[in-house]
Amino acid sequence: MTYDDGADAAFDVGLLAPGRVAAAAEQATGDRAFLQAMLDAEAALTRAQAELGLAPAAAAEAVTDAARAERFDPRDLAVRARSGGNPVIPLVADLTAAVPPEAAAYVHRGATSQDILDSAAMLVASRTLALIHAELDCTAGELARFAAAHRDTPMPGRTLTQHAVPTTFGLKAAGWRALVLDARDRIATVRATLPAQLGGAAGTLAAFEAFEAYAVVEPAGEGSVLGLLPAYARQLGLAEPELPWHTLRTPVADLAGALAFAAGALGKLAADVLVLSRTELGEVSEGGGGGGGGSSAMPHKANPVRATLIAAAARRAPGLAATLYGCVSAEDERPAGAWHAEWESLRDLLRAVGGAARDAAELTAHLRVHPERMRAHLDLTDGLIVSERLAVALAVPLGRARAKQLLTDAAADSRTGRGSWAETLAARLAGAGLDAAAVDALDLAGLTDPTRYTGAAAALTDRALTRR
Amino acid sequence: MTYDDGADAAFDVGLLAPGRVAAAAEQATGDRAFLQAMLDAEAALTRAQAELGLAPAAAAEAVTDAARAERFDPRDLAVRARSGGNPVIPLVADLTAAVPPEAAAYVHRGATSQDILDSAAMLVASRTLALIHAELDCTAGELARFAAAHRDTPMPGRTLTQHAVPTTFGLKAAGWRALVLDARDRIATVRATLPAQLGGAAGTLAAFEAFEAYAVVEPAGEGSVLGLLPAYARQLGLAEPELPWHTLRTPVADLAGALAFAAGALGKLAADVLVLSRTELGEVSEGGGGGGGGSSAMPHKANPVRATLIAAAARRAPGLAATLYGCVSAEDERPAGAWHAEWESLRDLLRAVGGAARDAAELTAHLRVHPERMRAHLDLTDGLIVSERLAVALAVPLGRARAKQLLTDAAADSRTGRGSWAETLAARLAGAGLDAAAVDALDLAGLTDPTRYTGAAAALTDRALTRR
Amino acid sequence: MTYDDGADAAFDVGLLAPGRVAAAAEQATGDRAFLQAMLDAEAALTRAQAELGLAPAAAAEAVTDAARAERFDPRDLAVRARSGGNPVIPLVADLTAAVPPEAAAYVHRGATSQDILDSAAMLVASRTLALIHAELDCTAGELARFAAAHRDTPMPGRTLTQHAVPTTFGLKAAGWRALVLDARDRIATVRATLPAQLGGAAGTLAAFEAFEAYAVVEPAGEGSVLGLLPAYARQLGLAEPELPWHTLRTPVADLAGALAFAAGALGKLAADVLVLSRTELGEVSEGGGGGGGGSSAMPHKANPVRATLIAAAARRAPGLAATLYGCVSAEDERPAGAWHAEWESLRDLLRAVGGAARDAAELTAHLRVHPERMRAHLDLTDGLIVSERLAVALAVPLGRARAKQLLTDAAADSRTGRGSWAETLAARLAGAGLDAAAVDALDLAGLTDPTRYTGAAAALTDRALTRR
Amino acid sequence: MTYDDGADAAFDVGLLAPGRVAAAAEQATGDRAFLQAMLDAEAALTRAQAELGLAPAAAAEAVTDAARAERFDPRDLAVRARSGGNPVIPLVADLTAAVPPEAAAYVHRGATSQDILDSAAMLVASRTLALIHAELDCTAGELARFAAAHRDTPMPGRTLTQHAVPTTFGLKAAGWRALVLDARDRIATVRATLPAQLGGAAGTLAAFEAFEAYAVVEPAGEGSVLGLLPAYARQLGLAEPELPWHTLRTPVADLAGALAFAAGALGKLAADVLVLSRTELGEVSEGGGGGGGGSSAMPHKANPVRATLIAAAARRAPGLAATLYGCVSAEDERPAGAWHAEWESLRDLLRAVGGAARDAAELTAHLRVHPERMRAHLDLTDGLIVSERLAVALAVPLGRARAKQLLTDAAADSRTGRGSWAETLAARLAGAGLDAAAVDALDLAGLTDPTRYTGAAAALTDRALTRR
Repeated sequence: MTYDDGADAAFDVGLLAPGRVAAAAEQATGDRAFLQAMLDAEAALTRAQAELGLAPAAAAEAVTDAARAERFDPRDLAVRARSGGNPVIPLVADLTAAVPPEAAAYVHRGATSQDILDSAAMLVASRTLALIHAELDCTAGELARFAAAHRDTPMPGRTLTQHAVPTTFGLKAAGWRALVLDARDRIATVRATLPAQLGGAAGTLAAFEAFEAYAVVEPAGEGSVLGLLPAYARQLGLAEPELPWHTLRTPVADLAGALAFAAGALGKLAADVLVLSRTELGEVSEGGGGGGGGSSAMPHKANPVRATLIAAAARRAPGLAATLYGCVSAEDERPAGAWHAEWESLRDLLRAVGGAARDAAELTAHLRVHPERMRAHLDLTDGLIVSERLAVALAVPLGRARAKQLLTDAAADSRTGRGSWAETLAARLAGAGLDAAAVDALDLAGLTDPTRYTGAAAALTDRALTRR
Repeated sequence: MTYDDGADAAFDVGLLAPGRVAAAAEQATGDRAFLQAMLDAEAALTRAQAELGLAPAAAAEAVTDAARAERFDPRDLAVRARSGGNPVIPLVADLTAAVPPEAAAYVHRGATSQDILDSAAMLVASRTLALIHAELDCTAGELARFAAAHRDTPMPGRTLTQHAVPTTFGLKAAGWRALVLDARDRIATVRATLPAQLGGAAGTLAAFEAFEAYAVVEPAGEGSVLGLLPAYARQLGLAEPELPWHTLRTPVADLAGALAFAAGALGKLAADVLVLSRTELGEVSEGGGGGGGGSSAMPHKANPVRATLIAAAARRAPGLAATLYGCVSAEDERPAGAWHAEWESLRDLLRAVGGAARDAAELTAHLRVHPERMRAHLDLTDGLIVSERLAVALAVPLGRARAKQLLTDAAADSRTGRGSWAETLAARLAGAGLDAAAVDALDLAGLTDPTRYTGAAAALTDRALTRR
Repeated sequence: MTYDDGADAAFDVGLLAPGRVAAAAEQATGDRAFLQAMLDAEAALTRAQAELGLAPAAAAEAVTDAARAERFDPRDLAVRARSGGNPVIPLVADLTAAVPPEAAAYVHRGATSQDILDSAAMLVASRTLALIHAELDCTAGELARFAAAHRDTPMPGRTLTQHAVPTTFGLKAAGWRALVLDARDRIATVRATLPAQLGGAAGTLAAFEAFEAYAVVEPAGEGSVLGLLPAYARQLGLAEPELPWHTLRTPVADLAGALAFAAGALGKLAADVLVLSRTELGEVSEGGGGGGGGSSAMPHKANPVRATLIAAAARRAPGLAATLYGCVSAEDERPAGAWHAEWESLRDLLRAVGGAARDAAELTAHLRVHPERMRAHLDLTDGLIVSERLAVALAVPLGRARAKQLLTDAAADSRTGRGSWAETLAARLAGAGLDAAAVDALDLAGLTDPTRYTGAAAALTDRALTRR
Repeated sequence: MTYDDGADAAFDVGLLAPGRVAAAAEQATGDRAFLQAMLDAEAALTRAQAELGLAPAAAAEAVTDAARAERFDPRDLAVRARSGGNPVIPLVADLTAAVPPEAAAYVHRGATSQDILDSAAMLVASRTLALIHAELDCTAGELARFAAAHRDTPMPGRTLTQHAVPTTFGLKAAGWRALVLDARDRIATVRATLPAQLGGAAGTLAAFEAFEAYAVVEPAGEGSVLGLLPAYARQLGLAEPELPWHTLRTPVADLAGALAFAAGALGKLAADVLVLSRTELGEVSEGGGGGGGGSSAMPHKANPVRATLIAAAARRAPGLAATLYGCVSAEDERPAGAWHAEWESLRDLLRAVGGAARDAAELTAHLRVHPERMRAHLDLTDGLIVSERLAVALAVPLGRARAKQLLTDAAADSRTGRGSWAETLAARLAGAGLDAAAVDALDLAGLTDPTRYTGAAAALTDRALTRR
């Protein structure tokens, strides 16, 4: 059951995707970008053959000239792709028709559809990873700024949603940055290894060898068919493959892992921003035009929209990556399904992460920090936030077990309304037989000052900031 | 880092998606379809309010008139959606501008963005499920035809890739059909329950109540705000919700489950077709124009393209469904991310299944069955395929354990080249002390005829075909 | 590379699984429970055959007597399962050895391993779903109590982490309950349909037919082999299958969906409890022994441990369900891998949800609600939380657009420190030309009382509580 | 609802897990192995503190002596872990009780549960990755043997299930090996970076600093608290962390990626073995005891059990990895759920891959290759398998487009029964106007010999085998 095609009603123009709309990564991964990358792959192949004397230079020029996406109709190709199951088949027909007759025989010569589509996917991935890398660098720079500026800004450390012990916003920002740099480094590592794809019908390069018999000029030597691999890779600016990798999907799996991790790394930043900007916390707020996003109903709302969209991307990435990892188990020399399932999954993952990286750069460029709220929250538990330190100090006069029990009891007293933490603590200390002098010696005021119990937070921050 | 927008380079027009291109489900889930559904939701809301006297009838008419997708620019809305994080905010602005001034106050009156977007998603889902339902019915019909026609067509049953015992192609087709009907029934069940969404800013319907004070005509009674729920649902042709479900995501999870199952059900069909059409098996082949899809390099190829594309969809669906199930754990009255992650995941899942359902209908309409190949394969193991039956028969003279051992030994003899299965079996029977008369009594010829060991396959097929 | 087996060092006894340890569902899904269920399936099969005259009653009794898990060594079976790839093969050997010689021939007669393992999985699932159903009922009961008790307890409604408009804790609890009931109903629906599995080697029931020739008593009639299906199902207390479903995995997919949804439903409850028990919010707290879980380092901590463990289960369930949905695409009459991948995934999912259901029952039985904190938080935004209502009221004198702009400006003034919300609002109203009388007429005090803007929350709660 | 605990009925002893039972990785990841690793982490911490003068040497010795898993009851710890939500809390209590009183104060001194559990997980992962690395090396060695031995063994290359052009079994094995080496290298890279975890309550090392005041001997200098990080890492044989990584989960994500890829890489090998051992293909068969796994019903079956179990692991890994990637988005200084969800997911993934690596080593050690079947299959399409080569050759006299059309027509003639491929081809060539001399010049016999059209397969194999 199909409908009279031709309309653009079926298109995805980004209406459901505010997270990636208008990000550079969106355009870099659009259908036209894929189309251009396929054409780049076709042209590079003819040029590589020309380089080795297997095609006339004029044919290489002609194919290169013709290989411009704006000359082709992506929707028409999409519809015609249904017959053979991939868009390269109709594209080869159109490209062949677009070159002068004498060049036609050198279009797609010796290649299989997968050579072109995989190489194109690597080109698109490589271009998009470069954009993502730049956004992550940008974000890391902003976070370094926060880490340095707030090296000594105390705030509550929170575990399992509860105040634990104090930390600093500097250390928090340094941690976000460390994750972002981890993501950047993994992106860079994968990008440097993305290979061109070339194998011919079943990965043996047999047709290239057959065409060699009809080479225009003298072939460069015995190894000339294998010589196509580096020549083609060089033309594409991609790495030379060890083997044709039609069903050896390491590059796609590596992309899946690096991108899923990047989504998670940005998702951690977003998760923290979402917590810290809750109305009750207000320790940070999204800046930018008007301070966060508005609402269709509530004039006062200033929503953490950038963090929200990043969080959404982080929720989608693991499922997309799982699909790609699952496709590594691909049978035969070209699998019936595992390859095809990669295309949209990889694109969606690139888009989700590309958008999230853009949003993270915007978020951190405009994030506002409210140290006074952080400071106020340190007092919320009335000193309980440094009970750990008290446990250390009280272990000297009381022993470790008794000290811990005393603090647990005093905390319970305080929670159940039998007085402030200072009062219940004093009462329990007295009950434990400590006289006034002993209590004085403890310097309770100093011990319970949360701003003086940030441990090695500043030193850790300094240390983390030395990473480039 | 953004780019000068306006170009269509970023669009997804289906180039990477031969599985869903030009399927009815593609158009039903395109951005324009979502846009129309949002407009339908806005218009239904004003009409429902008019019905209850909370808005003038003229306003309802005006909004309904204006709510036509072709009047709005989905890309422009998409770009403006970035600020607040969803496309309803700019849409409300544009729709308000598109109605006469006196109707403006009744656009989106009392609602929140999520009311509109969720209702739109349910409309899109409902319309797409109807298409999928029809395709599944179609496919089930074709499969019933195969089951009936091949009720008695014997073929090898295969387990863990090896011939096990004979079965029939009729039972196989009946099994495919049972799965397809299971999918159809789950789709129908979910479709019947898809609810309209209406809750206002935080799910309390408070703004509707506030607006009631300014109702044009006398409200219909005390319960009139709750009365909006059935009125709105009726206007939309959706079910009335028990509660506003901004963060009670049962409908989305139900969709995820039904769609993931449908993808799997069709994936089973595809997996079998892919096995059975292998060059070495050739028991079925895809028909259609030219008998399967061609290749860019190999003139002789006739690929099972429909099955391949279905298999690809079946690989993608579980990851998409997992994302949707994960979004059920949504905090607060509207979550920061879990809601946003649903939009593209649900659309992609609808498209993947919609495309696969279309391809399954095409596949089964044209599938060619080759009973002679099935018959030939039954002889491939030289009778071993009915060793189970021999084990039963030989248990009478030899006892169960000895019978099984004898057959295992004879099979090993045969596998290791010590003669045909008939020869090694005869030798072993003699070795076990059975005289010629005893062997004759066994009717080895009858016992080892694979076409006479299909068990209850025909009866099971008949029984399964009674299901409607 | 293997090691000298026999030690219990490899066992999983729950050390990494506090979420399910000691839950009834844990024991119901342990290896011994699976072993017992396999034995139950074997015994039921012999009894069903006896019922139809295909086996002596004494054999049925003997097998039933022997089929007690404590007589068998699950680890030894596990090790021997490696050879054939499933535990039924060694189990049949041991069970055969455990019955009197004259019953031996009737053990596993006609069946295949998958008949037994699938039937056992359905038994285990059915028993565990019953436990989960009970826990969910229990939880729903507690939540009904909260919904009724807090029908009119106002609290901030929160969207995208920010205060939106007021809601009530009663409505929140009613929403949690609605989700829990949705989960319960889906669990019940699936449970009622879980079928026995019986097909023989390749799903044709052929061996059963072959054995019929040697039936002890006169078979019950022509259809007696098909008659085994209901007889066997009845013996197991499971539904009769439409067809043998070795590769028609609807039951497993249905389980995946119902369980993944249940995990999400409980995950929503947990997500809210985690937000509301944050130190800064403190609107609810986990009760139970000592008020939440302790810490190894911090005496004052009272962690929301139950909610944490539920949240962990909700994170794991989608991935497990995705694996199960993926296994629906299973080739042939028994797939090489897709079946085997189900076993641990299904068990883990049953355990995760079983544990979470137990924790939800404990959580809700002891949850403490702090209405005074909720009330206090309604004042946090100084009245901004009802800006929506003001927008409605101000639209009368000012028109909708001007009213919204005025409120947005006043909110921005307040956010940027130019006075309290009341002050900036008054200033903006004056600036808009409203005289004192007009302002008085608005009854700002009433309009901005957050406890008087809970909309239909109470009515919705009442309505939701009518569901049973 | 709980049950009277104490029984072992709930245990997982491997009954559902033939894929990992008795693999070295099973024992390395059992609960006792995790328990030992936690104890190792505790002992290493005290030793590191002793090294820096923060604890007496005798205490370090005492804790190290006591830290033996067999002294503790993992089930009892598991049950007690429910209260605080992790097993370290009860373990610290038991370990403290197990050392002499004077050492008690130095147990777990300054640490938080997560320091111990994360460090233990890294130890377990590191030990298991070493086992997996060894199995992968072993497998790669076997595959090198096959690649070399079958460098020139021709077989059909298959794409989308259909014969494409010839390839060699050597190239196929070389491809499997390349993937296995890719997996090994990623495993090794991740293993080298697995860090110790140390941060104290909220990642600031504050308690360690507090305890420093009570140091036994003079601390080693200002940086002594940061000095704990390398000292502790050295004691554990793990890498030093850049920062405490309680919520910077790069190491876990890296494990997820490397393991999911390894599962996929082995899954590719398994997928091919499963195809090639189909009854109709029989190009390879699993060897080992008796030639593959048996069946409970069919004496003749020789199932590819090792490949089946590997395929099952490959189906489970992506979902488990997705859960782990999702947990990177962890809020606060310790998340409420995201950390807890990692534990079982990571263990299951290690087990799945550990088992699959063992099975791959067994599979490749015993795999039997049947070149005669491969050779026979090359003739199955009657020469069509080299139609690509003919297209190249015929392009000289006919031009590319006419050549392709002629071959497509001849193939269609052949498929539809109008003669053998040789006949239909000859007819079409005559129809195209080629005279006998021209046809002779083509050397059709040579051109259509499939064993002479393996392209660069041998050269690619040689090249791939140079990798170590």
